[in-house]
Amino acid sequence: MSTTDTMTTPSALPIAVTAGDPAGIGPEIVARLFRDHADEMRGCFAVGDVAVLRRAAECLGTPSLPVAVLASAGQAWAAAPHCLPVLPVVEARAPVDWGVISAEAGRQAAEAVVWASRAALRGAVAAVVTAPLHKEALSAAGVDFPGHTELLQAEAAAHAGTTIDRMPVRMMLANQELRTVLVSIHMSLRDALDAVTFDNVLATLRISATSLSRLLGRPARLAVAGVNPHAGEGGLFGREEIDIVAPAIAAARAEGIDAHGPFPPDTIFMRARASAGRADGFDAVVAMYHDQGLIPVKYLGIEDGVNVTLGLPLVRTSPDHGTAFDLAGTGRADASSLLAAVRMARRLAG
Amino acid sequence: MSTTDTMTTPSALPIAVTAGDPAGIGPEIVARLFRDHADEMRGCFAVGDVAVLRRAAECLGTPSLPVAVLASAGQAWAAAPHCLPVLPVVEARAPVDWGVISAEAGRQAAEAVVWASRAALRGAVAAVVTAPLHKEALSAAGVDFPGHTELLQAEAAAHAGTTIDRMPVRMMLANQELRTVLVSIHMSLRDALDAVTFDNVLATLRISATSLSRLLGRPARLAVAGVNPHAGEGGLFGREEIDIVAPAIAAARAEGIDAHGPFPPDTIFMRARASAGRADGFDAVVAMYHDQGLIPVKYLGIEDGVNVTLGLPLVRTSPDHGTAFDLAGTGRADASSLLAAVRMARRLAG
Repeated sequence: MSTTDTMTTPSALPIAVTAGDPAGIGPEIVARLFRDHADEMRGCFAVGDVAVLRRAAECLGTPSLPVAVLASAGQAWAAAPHCLPVLPVVEARAPVDWGVISAEAGRQAAEAVVWASRAALRGAVAAVVTAPLHKEALSAAGVDFPGHTELLQAEAAAHAGTTIDRMPVRMMLANQELRTVLVSIHMSLRDALDAVTFDNVLATLRISATSLSRLLGRPARLAVAGVNPHAGEGGLFGREEIDIVAPAIAAARAEGIDAHGPFPPDTIFMRARASAGRADGFDAVVAMYHDQGLIPVKYLGIEDGVNVTLGLPLVRTSPDHGTAFDLAGTGRADASSLLAAVRMARRLAG
Repeated sequence: MSTTDTMTTPSALPIAVTAGDPAGIGPEIVARLFRDHADEMRGCFAVGDVAVLRRAAECLGTPSLPVAVLASAGQAWAAAPHCLPVLPVVEARAPVDWGVISAEAGRQAAEAVVWASRAALRGAVAAVVTAPLHKEALSAAGVDFPGHTELLQAEAAAHAGTTIDRMPVRMMLANQELRTVLVSIHMSLRDALDAVTFDNVLATLRISATSLSRLLGRPARLAVAGVNPHAGEGGLFGREEIDIVAPAIAAARAEGIDAHGPFPPDTIFMRARASAGRADGFDAVVAMYHDQGLIPVKYLGIEDGVNVTLGLPLVRTSPDHGTAFDLAGTGRADASSLLAAVRMARRLAG
């Protein structure tokens, strides 16, 4: 990194946008944003191999999008509009075909994320927005983490001189209508039920309150879903609400967190959506497992969904879709979820 | 019953609308439909105490709605429009206050349902639409069933000379955008996972295919949700999809049922909604547990949601809300879900 990076004033810190797996749609949706949303992309720059990003820009057709190679992240603000500013911290060692899983693609994707997370941790960038990578390519590259979240968690833990288990993170999925934070993500539903513990629910409430209050500029009002139908109906359909969720909410409230519930899962997302923006509305719903939160947030479409990793000492957002290998190179991939991720990153970093 | 009932031609069979718990909003939403939707209510009649229904009609204010006491169900078609036709098969023994749980209210509600289900089973009515009852009032009245479904199931089993466990039923929730059929309903999520068995999933597919094909007038195309995040991601996050759901789908397909899946739960409801009405769309999503199906179907609001009990040898629909004791007697309760239930009953009976 150039020493000018850390001398930049915080308000002018740039945002790093990693290109994702070069065989997927990541590079071309990054390029599309710089071409078609130049105003909103000011101060952002792409992290990836220059040739990969140039190829992505070309696959979009006209109008053409020239690549501007930056010498430092700080130059992002000075980049001309309607060009694709690339910080060449990742270098291709071999060509990558569109739509094909490869170790080379996985390595490039991972290196971009590692560089961007370290830049964020040392204060050189305000936020990291990550285009999608492919888990199998990552694995083929010998990267020991299943995805972005775990990779970022490891970087943050190393930076803080602590262990990964002391760096709890939570996934938030947000769109224009609803935000949901998940107690657990990629595990079986049986395991997810075991993961509904007092500590995990309380940690989720703490992380949600801290991050959302920063995002909103005021204390966040949180709804907490129950585990069981009708939130257990007083213990008739399961006791998790009585034994775990309600005590965790009480503990959070004792810490000053404005958490409410547990509410019947089948209506709390509807209620949160219907009350959005009202004084008695909820800013987010804490969901007890992956599908409880993701079914409603995806129900109206995933075009503008944003994935936010909460709990890290850095801002990280990403679009709510994968590498879409079948679309890669066509220039037809929809960039709106990535644009929403850039907007969210700016708000969280602001 | 009058003997003229069974002599009525099938196409002219009336529809019984039970008044529900007299302390709740049931009687007044029934009355509202007869007053404000006279055309759509032709051939329907209310089942409940005459005085209870008259009080409900009066709480609506102007224009007034006179009660017409019927001598038989068959007279429903001859009732004047903009009156409230009541078949007085239930008689109050004591006054019931609005908003108060009581054994008397539970007894009236249960008797109406028992009468209507028997009338449907003997072919005297085409369908039963049930206004909400209160589970605690039912229990106070000494009724041994937790709700409508179990009561109807017991009546149907008795009529067929069989046992309740040989009369499997499934709940379908439907609105303008989505239909979902649930493998299980009122049990803890842990118990619901145990209820995801080959037999239960296959029974759900059979019941769904039979009922929906009748409703649609063509073979129904069914989507089946998985149990786990990403439908288990090939066994990585749980094996229910591999060991149970996929084999049940295969067995259903071998019987000629057009079932597809298992699909990732977080996007299949979105996909079914987005593809509704298209040739490659799905007519319903089979959900593995209560909240998986009800979160999406309720997400956009419950005003027009209809609950349908599938699998019974009678047509039964109900609104997707409860007794709303806090609103009872105000005349302000929304009757649109009950209206949707009447429409659905007509389509299923037709």
